[in-house]
Amino acid sequence: MSADLAIMSGREAASAIRSGKVTASDVAKASLDRIETLNPDINAYTLVTADRALAEADAVDKAFATGDDPGPLAGVTFSVKNLFDLAGEVTLAGSKINVDDPPAARDATSVERLCAAGAICLGATNMGEYAYDFVTVNAHYGATRNPHDLTRSAGGSSGGSGAAVAGGLGAISLGTDTNGSIRVPSSFCGIWGLKPGYGQLSRAGGFLFSGSLDTIGVLGRDVADLASSFDAMAGHDARDPVCRTGAPEPAMPSLDAGLSGLRISRLGGYFRKGWTDDIAAIMQAVGDALDLASDIELPKPELARSAAYAITATEGGEFHRHRLRQRAADYDPADRDRFLAGSLVPAEWYLQAQRFRTWWHHQMQDVFANADILIAPATPLAAPLLDQTNFELDGVAYPLRPNIGLWTQPITLIGLPVVAAPVHIPGQLPLAVQIIGKPGSEPDLLRVARFLEASGTCAAPVAGTV
Amino acid sequence: MSADLAIMSGREAASAIRSGKVTASDVAKASLDRIETLNPDINAYTLVTADRALAEADAVDKAFATGDDPGPLAGVTFSVKNLFDLAGEVTLAGSKINVDDPPAARDATSVERLCAAGAICLGATNMGEYAYDFVTVNAHYGATRNPHDLTRSAGGSSGGSGAAVAGGLGAISLGTDTNGSIRVPSSFCGIWGLKPGYGQLSRAGGFLFSGSLDTIGVLGRDVADLASSFDAMAGHDARDPVCRTGAPEPAMPSLDAGLSGLRISRLGGYFRKGWTDDIAAIMQAVGDALDLASDIELPKPELARSAAYAITATEGGEFHRHRLRQRAADYDPADRDRFLAGSLVPAEWYLQAQRFRTWWHHQMQDVFANADILIAPATPLAAPLLDQTNFELDGVAYPLRPNIGLWTQPITLIGLPVVAAPVHIPGQLPLAVQIIGKPGSEPDLLRVARFLEASGTCAAPVAGTV
Repeated sequence: MSADLAIMSGREAASAIRSGKVTASDVAKASLDRIETLNPDINAYTLVTADRALAEADAVDKAFATGDDPGPLAGVTFSVKNLFDLAGEVTLAGSKINVDDPPAARDATSVERLCAAGAICLGATNMGEYAYDFVTVNAHYGATRNPHDLTRSAGGSSGGSGAAVAGGLGAISLGTDTNGSIRVPSSFCGIWGLKPGYGQLSRAGGFLFSGSLDTIGVLGRDVADLASSFDAMAGHDARDPVCRTGAPEPAMPSLDAGLSGLRISRLGGYFRKGWTDDIAAIMQAVGDALDLASDIELPKPELARSAAYAITATEGGEFHRHRLRQRAADYDPADRDRFLAGSLVPAEWYLQAQRFRTWWHHQMQDVFANADILIAPATPLAAPLLDQTNFELDGVAYPLRPNIGLWTQPITLIGLPVVAAPVHIPGQLPLAVQIIGKPGSEPDLLRVARFLEASGTCAAPVAGTV
Repeated sequence: MSADLAIMSGREAASAIRSGKVTASDVAKASLDRIETLNPDINAYTLVTADRALAEADAVDKAFATGDDPGPLAGVTFSVKNLFDLAGEVTLAGSKINVDDPPAARDATSVERLCAAGAICLGATNMGEYAYDFVTVNAHYGATRNPHDLTRSAGGSSGGSGAAVAGGLGAISLGTDTNGSIRVPSSFCGIWGLKPGYGQLSRAGGFLFSGSLDTIGVLGRDVADLASSFDAMAGHDARDPVCRTGAPEPAMPSLDAGLSGLRISRLGGYFRKGWTDDIAAIMQAVGDALDLASDIELPKPELARSAAYAITATEGGEFHRHRLRQRAADYDPADRDRFLAGSLVPAEWYLQAQRFRTWWHHQMQDVFANADILIAPATPLAAPLLDQTNFELDGVAYPLRPNIGLWTQPITLIGLPVVAAPVHIPGQLPLAVQIIGKPGSEPDLLRVARFLEASGTCAAPVAGTV
């Protein structure tokens, strides 16, 4: 019973708690038990906030007992990538350097909003240092292991969040995505991931690094959990100057509306080169379910990726300049040189990347004149081994870490929203496809995701329980 | 009679033509005659498009003759800084290098819109090379001379436009303002200048240089001419990706509404240091007319100026990189080193300037919570001698060219709209004050300007006719 409680999706748990079948405290305790049992192997959590979780669960139960409504997420357990502020805790951002920071005075806005809707915070998850990473093999806090195969990476940089969700260690998890850091763990862990459009969710209280690209989002095992948590977190926040002023359209009301009115196309060309058999298989499954016919080619996607690279490195190098000067030796060696290089980029290069970005933004408006939704694979490979350094694409060996974002980076150069939809084909590791839309289309993306979930094409089973 | 026709304001000319007292052709011919007579001394024009002007005037007259309405600017003569495209002409942007460019295929959007409203294009005016300048002492096309004193500068970089308007060589002139290039000539030449908010008027067909700061605007001798030409040019333009999508509020309808509802404050601190007697005199005159009491101090204006400097140099250097590599020796020596230095700025500096800009934008929102209109002097001195290299402020000698923008640069770091209002005090050279507002406040600024004009405090007489 306890194990079953822990691995319910947020939707299932919220429903069971609301109907009085179980209490939020039962669910929280079951989740904390499961974390205690499994986390030593998976290394998803770097901090378990058991006291907080139990107190929040108790408050939810007491509210129901007195006839109050604690909110739409009442009893939904969640974790946060350890770059989100949790009041009273030090925000590590995967680093050794931040250990010396004072504890956060208050929760990140996104955490505040989830808790205000009744959700229960279980703790903070491991990540690639300072989020500049795709594998979560962290020099300070160890590698996070993929619950589907403990010898493999959970992806990064929100790898702890991906592994927590895939392992049933909490219903949902907050992650961040600059170049693919939600979509890559979603793909490697076979779970749902929502990377909202740029500026859609407040970044206040998050220790991010690339101001013009960073977004926060959510990973889960149920499309409804992505939709309800998105709705709970959305809306302007005076603490985040980049956050859009208007509230976005909520995603829950239209979640089961099906595909009507949506023109869905597959991305060809750059996004179709070098497909391995397992990628072809998931794209076939999704293509059949969505009845995809035509391929659309984006203009110069390889330059879009280059621009994303240049902007990330430059903004990251600038953001870290004081720390690099004072504590370069304390960085994860996998990050240090990239941040240093970024801090030395001439502004001329940065401006060229920004100019391309403006051009691409307009080109993509033309693309979206002919399609509402674009479909592409999320990663060029399934979860690599933890010590893997290369992978093959079209018969050519590429360095692993710098190339995992091959298909995620171009998309987010201009801040488009994306849902990563997991496909589990028997006998192969999970992989995800990207469901991509224009700014503000989160409800449409989640509608397509829900269609794929309802049709049985996509699913996010807890690892080891299928 | 002919001389009188040439020096009418646009409003006067349009009214006389519409009522049938004179023809547009009469006005155009009178203006062309005056240019032929005076331009050799003033060097305001680098190109006179006499055939075009006469053809456009003839079309206006024919339209009236057949009962058509050629538009609200019918018969208003104008010139353009020679960085605006005129169909069939090479767009010099004050340079020798651009001479090799092909002629423009079509007019700049702003020119198209003025002409669509019935205005008559007289030609193109001299400017500081590539608009990176405050004095219009151009190594290739000579210095433009101030019509109020031919030994003095007309200001820059829209110096030819300022001198043309002050000298009565056309009713209005299109200029551009990145750090003060409309407001400085307005001040030195004693004329009105409108630098609209960033993104308010289309920049399509303009050869500018600092994408995040550049704006186009208009100089004239009558506030109504600024308002009517602003209204004619405003509105989205698909050719300019930065141009705002909505049409701004038109300025003409409320022009004579007076000051009611406007909280007007003077800028203190940084903007009040080192006032010479002539600056104190114009500020006294304007302060009395507007009944100004309190001073407002902006947060860190000196950093706002530094940020504007860094962003201008960096974006300019990047924009010119190909030309600098190929034709560095052909640049005006006054520009070359600055563009070269800008092309070598580390992105880290640029991003710090952009971060300050974001911070300042939010700080200024607080300032505008307490004031609608801010008043400050435009320049720290009146028109300098053409060979002048220094000026004194508070007893300290400063290099002239780099410091003319002392009070204009901070304001436009965040793209605020400004009207430069000229004050002519007998026995001293003219000077202008800045009337500064929040984004979208152009109609309010022009309303204040019109009040100052109607009260006799501000005026823009044709040089030599007062």
